Amino acid sequence: MASSTISSKDVNGSTVYSPDGQHLGHIDHLVIDKMSGQVAYAVMGFGGFLGMGEGHHPVPWRKLTFDTKLNGYVTDITKEALQGAPDRPHDWQENRDWATTFYGYYGIAPYWI
Amino acid sequence: MASSTISSKDVNGSTVYSPDGQHLGHIDHLVIDKMSGQVAYAVMGFGGFLGMGEGHHPVPWRKLTFDTKLNGYVTDITKEALQGAPDRPHDWQENRDWATTFYGYYGIAPYWI
Repeated sequence: MASSTISSKDVNGSTVYSPDGQHLGHIDHLVIDKMSGQVAYAVMGFGGFLGMGEGHHPVPWRKLTFDTKLNGYVTDITKEALQGAPDRPHDWQENRDWATTFYGYYGIAPYWI
Repeated sequence: MASSTISSKDVNGSTVYSPDGQHLGHIDHLVIDKMSGQVAYAVMGFGGFLGMGEGHHPVPWRKLTFDTKLNGYVTDITKEALQGAPDRPHDWQENRDWATTFYGYYGIAPYWI
C-alpha cells in the first residue's frame, strides 16, 4: 500500500526481522533530512544482536520493508554487512561525502536522489 | 543547509513559530509514508493556541522551515488557515483523496509528488 502512512511514534521501537523471520533488533529513531522531509536513516538498536553487543547502527530506510503480518520491518542486511559498514564520523548527519559512501556500500542511491 | 539532518526524537517536541517569531505550538509527532520514507505531515500540538483549545492538527511538512537561530520551525500557516482546514476522516493516514484535498487547501503539491 503505497499510500499508507505511520506515526514516527509507532516507527520508533518497531522490531526489525531478517527475511526468514529472525528478530534482529529494533528501530530506535529516524534521521530525517530537515529540508526535504525525507527519512535518511533508520537508526537500529541491537541488544546483543548475534554477539555484536549493544549499539546503534544507521541503515538506509529503503533497506527496510514494512511487513503487516509481522507488524514490523524486514531487512536483508546481514550481521556481516552491518559490521563492515563505513564508520560514522562525528558529523555524519550532515556529511554528504560519507553519506554517499555509506549508501554506495549498501548498493542503493542516496536518500536525496 | 540542504544536507543537514535531524533525529525524529529532536523533531518531536520542537517549537513552531510564526514568521514574526510568535510561539504557535509544537510538533507532536511526524507521519511518514511507509513505502517512500517521506514525511507526509507534521502533527502539531496546540496548548490553547489563540483560543483554539488543546488539539492536534496535521500540517504539510513543506510548510515548516527549520530556523537555526530560533532552534525551531517557522510556518506561515495562520490560525484562520488551520481552523478552515479540511476535517480529517478516520482513515486520513491512508486516504489519498483526502490528502490531495488537504494539500490543495495549503496550495502545495502532495507529499508523494
